[in-house]
Amino acid sequence: MSSDAADDIMDGTHSALRTHGYAALTMQDIADEAGLSKAALHYHFDCKHDLLLSFLDRLYGQFEERIADPPGDDPAEQLLSLIETVMLPPADDDPHEFRTALLEIEAQAPYDESFRERLERFDDAFTERIRSILAAGVEDGTFREDVAPDEAASFVATYVRGARTQNVAVGTPLDDSLSAFRSYVESTLLPASAEVDTE
Amino acid sequence: MSSDAADDIMDGTHSALRTHGYAALTMQDIADEAGLSKAALHYHFDCKHDLLLSFLDRLYGQFEERIADPPGDDPAEQLLSLIETVMLPPADDDPHEFRTALLEIEAQAPYDESFRERLERFDDAFTERIRSILAAGVEDGTFREDVAPDEAASFVATYVRGARTQNVAVGTPLDDSLSAFRSYVESTLLPASAEVDTE
Repeated sequence: MSSDAADDIMDGTHSALRTHGYAALTMQDIADEAGLSKAALHYHFDCKHDLLLSFLDRLYGQFEERIADPPGDDPAEQLLSLIETVMLPPADDDPHEFRTALLEIEAQAPYDESFRERLERFDDAFTERIRSILAAGVEDGTFREDVAPDEAASFVATYVRGARTQNVAVGTPLDDSLSAFRSYVESTLLPASAEVDTE
Repeated sequence: MSSDAADDIMDGTHSALRTHGYAALTMQDIADEAGLSKAALHYHFDCKHDLLLSFLDRLYGQFEERIADPPGDDPAEQLLSLIETVMLPPADDDPHEFRTALLEIEAQAPYDESFRERLERFDDAFTERIRSILAAGVEDGTFREDVAPDEAASFVATYVRGARTQNVAVGTPLDDSLSAFRSYVESTLLPASAEVDTE
Protein backbone atom coordinates (compact mmCIF):
# COMPACT_ATOMS: atom_id res chain seq x y z
CA MET A 1 0.00 0.00 0.00
CA SER A 2 1.35 3.43 -0.89
CA SER A 3 2.05 5.71 2.01
CA ASP A 4 -0.54 8.19 0.74
CA ALA A 5 -3.31 5.60 0.64
CA ALA A 6 -2.32 4.37 4.09
CA ASP A 7 -2.43 7.91 5.47
CA ASP A 8 -5.80 8.57 3.87
CA ILE A 9 -7.26 5.39 5.29
CA MET A 10 -5.85 5.99 8.75
CA ASP A 11 -7.01 9.62 8.79
CA GLY A 12 -10.40 8.45 7.56
CA THR A 13 -10.57 5.87 10.34
CA HIS A 14 -9.80 8.55 12.91
CA SER A 15 -12.56 10.81 11.58
CA ALA A 16 -15.01 7.95 11.25
CA LEU A 17 -14.41 6.83 14.85
CA ARG A 18 -15.09 10.37 16.05
CA THR A 19 -18.30 10.61 14.05
CA HIS A 20 -19.75 7.13 14.48
CA GLY A 21 -18.07 5.59 17.52
CA TYR A 22 -16.64 2.10 17.35
CA ALA A 23 -19.69 -0.13 17.74
CA ALA A 24 -21.65 1.42 14.87
CA LEU A 25 -18.62 1.95 12.59
CA THR A 26 -18.81 0.41 9.10
CA MET A 27 -16.23 0.00 6.34
CA GLN A 28 -18.46 2.31 4.27
CA ASP A 29 -18.14 5.06 6.93
CA ILE A 30 -14.36 4.76 6.81
CA ALA A 31 -14.31 4.73 3.00
CA ASP A 32 -16.48 7.87 2.97
CA GLU A 33 -14.22 9.70 5.40
CA ALA A 34 -11.09 8.58 3.52
CA GLY A 35 -12.55 9.66 0.16
CA LEU A 36 -12.15 6.14 -1.23
CA SER A 37 -14.55 3.56 -2.61
CA LYS A 38 -15.46 0.70 -0.33
CA ALA A 39 -13.84 -1.63 -2.88
CA ALA A 40 -10.56 0.30 -2.65
CA LEU A 41 -10.70 0.06 1.13
CA HIS A 42 -11.31 -3.71 0.97
CA TYR A 43 -8.35 -4.00 -1.37
CA HIS A 44 -6.14 -2.94 1.56
CA PHE A 45 -8.05 -4.45 4.49
CA ASP A 46 -10.20 -7.57 4.64
CA CYS A 47 -12.44 -6.25 7.37
CA LYS A 48 -13.02 -3.54 9.95
CA HIS A 49 -11.19 -5.60 12.55
CA ASP A 50 -7.93 -5.76 10.55
CA LEU A 51 -8.17 -2.10 9.75
CA LEU A 52 -8.68 -1.21 13.41
CA LEU A 53 -5.62 -3.23 14.40
CA SER A 54 -3.49 -1.28 11.90
CA PHE A 55 -5.03 1.90 13.21
CA LEU A 56 -4.10 0.99 16.79
CA ASP A 57 -0.56 0.22 15.62
CA ARG A 58 -0.26 3.65 14.04
CA LEU A 59 -1.71 5.25 17.15
CA TYR A 60 0.87 3.41 19.23
CA GLY A 61 3.71 4.75 17.07
CA GLN A 62 2.41 8.30 17.58
CA PHE A 63 1.99 7.65 21.30
CA GLU A 64 5.58 6.43 21.64
CA GLU A 65 6.81 9.64 20.01
CA ARG A 66 4.61 11.83 22.20
CA ILE A 67 5.88 10.29 25.44
CA ALA A 68 9.53 9.83 24.42
CA ASP A 69 11.02 13.03 25.78
CA PRO A 70 8.72 15.10 28.00
CA PRO A 71 10.09 18.63 28.53
CA GLY A 72 11.21 19.78 31.98
CA ASP A 73 14.29 20.87 33.92
CA ASP A 74 14.11 18.04 36.42
CA PRO A 75 12.30 14.69 36.79
CA ALA A 76 9.34 16.30 38.64
CA GLU A 77 8.70 18.70 35.76
CA GLN A 78 9.19 15.91 33.24
CA LEU A 79 6.67 13.74 35.07
CA LEU A 80 4.09 16.53 35.08
CA SER A 81 4.68 17.20 31.35
CA LEU A 82 4.30 13.51 30.58
CA ILE A 83 1.05 13.16 32.51
CA GLU A 84 -0.31 16.34 30.96
CA THR A 85 0.57 15.09 27.47
CA VAL A 86 -1.21 11.80 28.02
CA MET A 87 -4.16 13.10 30.00
CA LEU A 88 -4.95 16.13 27.86
CA PRO A 89 -5.35 15.55 24.12
CA PRO A 90 -3.42 17.47 21.44
CA ALA A 91 -5.17 20.76 20.73
CA ASP A 92 -6.15 19.83 17.16
CA ASP A 93 -7.87 16.67 18.27
CA ASP A 94 -11.51 16.28 19.18
CA PRO A 95 -10.85 14.74 22.55
CA HIS A 96 -14.20 13.65 23.80
CA GLU A 97 -15.54 11.83 20.78
CA PHE A 98 -12.32 10.09 19.92
CA ARG A 99 -11.74 9.05 23.52
CA THR A 100 -15.23 7.66 23.70
CA ALA A 101 -14.44 5.46 20.71
CA LEU A 102 -11.22 4.33 22.39
CA LEU A 103 -13.13 3.42 25.55
CA GLU A 104 -15.48 1.35 23.40
CA ILE A 105 -12.45 -0.47 22.00
CA GLU A 106 -11.15 -1.04 25.54
CA ALA A 107 -14.51 -2.50 26.52
CA GLN A 108 -14.12 -4.96 23.62
CA ALA A 109 -10.61 -5.97 24.66
CA PRO A 110 -11.72 -8.83 26.95
CA TYR A 111 -13.48 -10.40 23.98
CA ASP A 112 -10.62 -9.87 21.58
CA GLU A 113 -7.05 -10.96 22.27
CA SER A 114 -5.54 -8.93 19.42
CA PHE A 115 -7.11 -5.69 20.72
CA ARG A 116 -5.98 -6.55 24.20
CA GLU A 117 -2.37 -7.14 23.17
CA ARG A 118 -2.28 -3.74 21.51
CA LEU A 119 -3.80 -1.95 24.48
CA GLU A 120 -1.25 -3.62 26.73
CA ARG A 121 1.56 -2.13 24.64
CA PHE A 122 0.25 1.38 25.36
CA ASP A 123 0.03 0.61 29.04
CA ASP A 124 3.44 -0.99 29.24
CA ALA A 125 5.18 1.84 27.37
CA PHE A 126 3.47 4.52 29.46
CA THR A 127 4.18 2.78 32.78
CA GLU A 128 7.82 2.22 31.82
CA ARG A 129 8.22 5.88 30.86
CA ILE A 130 6.84 6.98 34.25
CA ARG A 131 9.04 4.42 36.03
CA SER A 132 12.23 5.64 34.40
CA ILE A 133 11.47 9.28 35.28
CA LEU A 134 10.71 8.28 38.89
CA ALA A 135 13.90 6.22 39.12
CA ALA A 136 15.98 9.12 37.76
CA GLY A 137 14.28 11.46 40.24
CA VAL A 138 14.92 9.22 43.23
CA GLU A 139 18.53 8.89 42.09
CA ASP A 140 19.15 12.64 41.77
CA GLY A 141 17.20 13.56 44.91
CA THR A 142 14.25 15.26 43.18
CA PHE A 143 11.90 12.65 44.65
CA ARG A 144 11.84 11.16 48.13
CA GLU A 145 14.24 8.29 48.59
CA ASP A 146 11.43 6.01 49.83
CA VAL A 147 9.51 6.29 46.54
CA ALA A 148 9.42 2.84 44.91
CA PRO A 149 9.55 3.56 41.16
CA ASP A 150 7.82 0.33 40.06
CA GLU A 151 4.87 0.60 42.38
CA ALA A 152 4.48 4.36 42.04
CA ALA A 153 4.60 4.08 38.23
CA SER A 154 1.75 1.56 38.20
CA PHE A 155 -0.18 3.72 40.61
CA VAL A 156 0.20 6.81 38.43
CA ALA A 157 -0.66 4.94 35.21
CA THR A 158 -3.79 3.56 36.88
CA TYR A 159 -4.78 7.03 38.03
CA VAL A 160 -4.37 8.48 34.53
CA ARG A 161 -6.51 5.70 33.08
CA GLY A 162 -9.17 6.44 35.69
CA ALA A 163 -9.13 10.14 34.83
CA ARG A 164 -9.62 9.42 31.14
CA THR A 165 -12.40 6.88 31.71
CA GLN A 166 -14.15 9.18 34.16
CA ASN A 167 -13.94 12.05 31.71
CA VAL A 168 -15.66 9.97 29.04
CA ALA A 169 -18.19 8.18 31.26
CA VAL A 170 -19.33 10.92 33.63
CA GLY A 171 -17.70 14.08 32.29
CA THR A 172 -15.24 14.85 35.10
CA PRO A 173 -13.03 17.67 33.70
CA LEU A 174 -9.50 16.52 32.90
CA ASP A 175 -8.12 19.78 34.33
CA ASP A 176 -9.51 18.84 37.75
CA SER A 177 -7.90 15.41 37.56
CA LEU A 178 -4.62 16.99 36.51
CA SER A 179 -4.69 19.43 39.38
CA ALA A 180 -5.34 16.60 41.87
CA PHE A 181 -2.37 14.78 40.33
CA ARG A 182 -0.14 17.80 40.97
CA SER A 183 -1.13 17.68 44.65
CA TYR A 184 -0.26 13.98 44.70
CA VAL A 185 3.21 14.73 43.32
CA GLU A 186 3.75 17.42 45.95
CA SER A 187 2.50 15.43 48.91
CA THR A 188 3.76 11.96 47.97
CA LEU A 189 6.74 12.14 45.64
CA LEU A 190 8.56 15.37 46.52
CA PRO A 191 10.59 15.57 49.73
CA ALA A 192 8.91 17.18 52.75
CA SER A 193 10.99 20.36 52.34
CA ALA A 194 9.62 20.82 48.82
CA GLU A 195 6.10 20.41 50.19
CA VAL A 196 6.67 23.24 52.61
CA ASP A 197 7.72 25.47 49.69
CA THR A 198 4.32 25.10 48.08
CA GLU A 199 2.36 26.18 51.13
CA MET B 1 -44.86 -5.73 38.84
CA SER B 2 -44.69 -8.27 41.67
CA SER B 3 -41.48 -8.30 43.64
CA ASP B 4 -40.81 -11.91 42.55
CA ALA B 5 -41.10 -11.12 38.84
CA ALA B 6 -38.91 -8.05 39.34
CA ASP B 7 -36.27 -10.11 41.11
CA ASP B 8 -36.36 -12.80 38.42
CA ILE B 9 -35.96 -10.23 35.67
CA MET B 10 -33.15 -8.42 37.44
CA ASP B 11 -31.31 -11.65 38.26
CA GLY B 12 -31.81 -12.73 34.67
CA THR B 13 -30.40 -9.44 33.43
CA HIS B 14 -27.32 -9.89 35.62
CA SER B 15 -26.72 -13.41 34.28
CA ALA B 16 -27.41 -12.37 30.71
CA LEU B 17 -24.93 -9.46 30.93
CA ARG B 18 -22.27 -11.86 32.20
CA THR B 19 -22.92 -14.34 29.42
CA HIS B 20 -23.49 -12.04 26.45
CA GLY B 21 -22.01 -8.66 27.36
CA TYR B 22 -23.99 -5.49 26.82
CA ALA B 23 -23.61 -4.82 23.09
CA ALA B 24 -24.89 -8.23 21.99
CA LEU B 25 -27.56 -8.54 24.69
CA THR B 26 -31.14 -9.18 23.50
CA MET B 27 -34.48 -9.22 25.31
CA GLN B 28 -34.65 -12.91 24.41
CA ASP B 29 -31.36 -13.57 26.25
CA ILE B 30 -32.73 -11.87 29.35
CA ALA B 31 -36.06 -13.73 29.10
CA ASP B 32 -34.17 -17.02 28.80
CA GLU B 33 -32.01 -16.31 31.85
CA ALA B 34 -35.03 -15.13 33.85
CA GLY B 35 -37.08 -18.20 32.90
CA LEU B 36 -39.80 -16.03 31.36
CA SER B 37 -41.30 -15.73 27.90
CA LYS B 38 -40.20 -12.76 25.85
CA ALA B 39 -43.83 -11.59 25.89
CA ALA B 40 -43.86 -11.64 29.69
CA LEU B 41 -40.65 -9.62 29.74
CA HIS B 42 -42.10 -7.07 27.31
CA TYR B 43 -45.15 -6.79 29.54
CA HIS B 44 -42.87 -5.28 32.19
CA PHE B 45 -40.36 -3.42 30.02
CA ASP B 46 -40.83 -1.82 26.63
CA CYS B 47 -37.26 -2.36 25.55
CA LYS B 48 -33.78 -3.39 26.57
CA HIS B 49 -32.92 0.22 27.31
CA ASP B 50 -35.70 0.67 29.91
CA LEU B 51 -34.85 -2.64 31.48
CA LEU B 52 -31.17 -1.70 31.75
CA LEU B 53 -32.06 1.58 33.44
CA SER B 54 -34.09 -0.32 36.07
CA PHE B 55 -31.21 -2.72 36.42
CA LEU B 56 -28.76 0.14 37.03
CA ASP B 57 -31.17 1.57 39.62
CA ARG B 58 -31.24 -1.72 41.48
CA LEU B 59 -27.47 -1.98 41.25
CA TYR B 60 -27.21 1.50 42.69
CA GLY B 61 -29.39 0.55 45.67
CA GLN B 62 -27.13 -2.44 46.37
CA PHE B 63 -24.05 -0.26 45.94
CA GLU B 64 -25.35 2.30 48.45
CA GLU B 65 -25.84 -0.47 51.02
CA ARG B 66 -22.40 -1.94 50.36
CA ILE B 67 -20.60 1.36 50.91
CA ALA B 68 -22.79 2.68 53.76
CA ASP B 69 -20.78 1.51 56.73
CA PRO B 70 -17.32 0.09 55.94
CA PRO B 71 -15.87 -1.79 58.92
CA GLY B 72 -12.76 -0.51 60.72
CA ASP B 73 -11.63 0.88 64.07
CA ASP B 74 -10.54 4.23 62.67
CA PRO B 75 -11.01 6.25 59.46
CA ALA B 76 -7.86 4.75 57.88
CA GLU B 77 -9.19 1.20 58.30
CA GLN B 78 -12.64 2.29 57.14
CA LEU B 79 -11.15 3.86 54.02
CA LEU B 80 -9.23 0.68 53.19
CA SER B 81 -12.36 -1.46 53.75
CA LEU B 82 -14.39 0.83 51.53
CA ILE B 83 -11.87 0.74 48.69
CA GLU B 84 -11.50 -3.01 49.00
CA THR B 85 -15.30 -3.45 48.87
CA VAL B 86 -15.61 -1.37 45.73
CA MET B 87 -12.46 -2.56 44.00
CA LEU B 88 -12.84 -6.28 44.66
CA PRO B 89 -16.17 -7.87 43.77
CA PRO B 90 -18.31 -9.90 46.20
CA ALA B 91 -17.04 -13.48 46.29
CA ASP B 92 -20.19 -14.97 44.72
CA ASP B 93 -19.99 -12.67 41.74
CA ASP B 94 -18.28 -13.35 38.45
CA PRO B 95 -16.17 -10.24 38.52
CA HIS B 96 -14.53 -10.13 35.18
CA GLU B 97 -17.47 -10.80 32.90
CA PHE B 98 -19.89 -8.59 34.72
CA ARG B 99 -17.38 -5.76 34.98
CA THR B 100 -16.70 -6.01 31.29
CA ALA B 101 -20.42 -5.51 30.64
CA LEU B 102 -20.41 -2.49 32.97
CA LEU B 103 -17.47 -0.98 31.10
CA GLU B 104 -19.43 -1.43 27.87
CA ILE B 105 -22.30 0.49 29.47
CA GLU B 106 -19.86 3.22 30.57
CA ALA B 107 -18.59 3.47 27.01
CA GLN B 108 -22.19 4.07 25.90
CA ALA B 109 -22.78 6.78 28.50
CA PRO B 110 -21.62 9.66 26.29
CA TYR B 111 -24.28 8.66 23.76
CA ASP B 112 -27.02 8.22 26.33
CA GLU B 113 -27.95 10.84 28.89
CA SER B 114 -30.03 8.45 31.01
CA PHE B 115 -27.13 5.99 31.38
CA ARG B 116 -24.82 8.86 32.18
CA GLU B 117 -27.06 10.25 34.93
CA ARG B 118 -27.15 6.86 36.57
CA LEU B 119 -23.39 6.35 36.37
CA GLU B 120 -22.89 9.78 37.90
CA ARG B 121 -24.95 8.73 40.91
CA PHE B 122 -22.53 5.87 41.59
CA ASP B 123 -19.60 8.22 41.28
CA ASP B 124 -21.12 10.92 43.44
CA ALA B 125 -22.13 8.51 46.22
CA PHE B 126 -18.72 6.83 46.23
CA THR B 127 -16.77 10.11 46.22
CA GLU B 128 -18.95 11.53 49.00
CA ARG B 129 -18.41 8.40 51.12
CA ILE B 130 -14.63 8.71 50.72
CA ARG B 131 -14.80 12.43 51.46
CA SER B 132 -16.69 11.96 54.70
CA ILE B 133 -14.22 9.31 55.93
CA LEU B 134 -11.29 11.56 55.03
CA ALA B 135 -12.89 14.56 56.77
CA ALA B 136 -13.52 12.49 59.92
CA GLY B 137 -9.93 11.25 59.82
CA VAL B 138 -8.44 14.73 59.44
CA GLU B 139 -10.67 15.87 62.32
CA ASP B 140 -9.63 13.08 64.71
CA GLY B 141 -5.95 13.16 63.71
CA THR B 142 -5.86 9.81 61.89
CA PHE B 143 -4.92 11.60 58.66
CA ARG B 144 -2.50 14.45 58.11
CA GLU B 145 -3.98 17.84 58.79
CA ASP B 146 -2.97 19.07 55.32
CA VAL B 147 -5.11 16.43 53.55
CA ALA B 148 -7.88 18.24 51.64
CA PRO B 149 -10.87 15.86 51.84
CA ASP B 150 -12.60 17.09 48.66
CA GLU B 151 -9.58 16.87 46.41
CA ALA B 152 -8.23 13.65 47.93
CA ALA B 153 -11.67 12.00 47.62
CA SER B 154 -11.84 12.78 43.90
CA PHE B 155 -8.29 11.55 43.49
CA VAL B 156 -9.05 8.24 45.20
CA ALA B 157 -12.32 7.71 43.29
CA THR B 158 -10.48 8.34 40.03
CA TYR B 159 -7.78 5.86 40.98
CA VAL B 160 -10.35 3.17 41.81
CA ARG B 161 -12.06 3.69 38.48
CA GLY B 162 -8.70 3.37 36.75
CA ALA B 163 -7.96 0.12 38.57
CA ARG B 164 -11.29 -1.38 37.52
CA THR B 165 -10.98 -0.27 33.90
CA GLN B 166 -7.40 -1.50 33.72
CA ASN B 167 -8.41 -4.85 35.16
CA VAL B 168 -11.02 -5.28 32.43
CA ALA B 169 -9.07 -3.82 29.53
CA VAL B 170 -5.57 -5.20 30.06
CA GLY B 171 -5.96 -7.64 32.96
CA THR B 172 -3.96 -5.83 35.67
CA PRO B 173 -4.70 -7.79 38.89
CA LEU B 174 -6.95 -5.87 41.31
CA ASP B 175 -4.82 -7.10 44.23
CA ASP B 176 -1.83 -5.23 42.80
CA SER B 177 -3.86 -2.04 42.46
CA LEU B 178 -5.12 -2.45 46.01
CA SER B 179 -1.66 -2.92 47.38
CA ALA B 180 -0.45 0.24 45.59
CA PHE B 181 -3.41 2.05 47.11
CA ARG B 182 -2.33 0.97 50.60
CA SER B 183 1.10 2.49 49.95
CA TYR B 184 -0.62 5.71 48.86
CA VAL B 185 -2.58 5.84 52.12
CA GLU B 186 0.61 5.31 54.12
CA SER B 187 2.74 7.81 52.27
CA THR B 188 0.16 10.51 51.54
CA LEU B 189 -2.69 10.40 54.04
CA LEU B 190 -1.19 9.11 57.28
CA PRO B 191 1.06 11.37 59.37
CA ALA B 192 4.83 10.98 58.94
CA SER B 193 5.12 9.15 62.27
CA ALA B 194 2.69 6.47 61.05
CA GLU B 195 4.75 6.11 57.87
CA VAL B 196 7.86 5.39 59.86
CA ASP B 197 6.02 2.60 61.68
CA THR B 198 5.48 0.74 58.42
CA GLU B 199 9.12 0.74 57.41
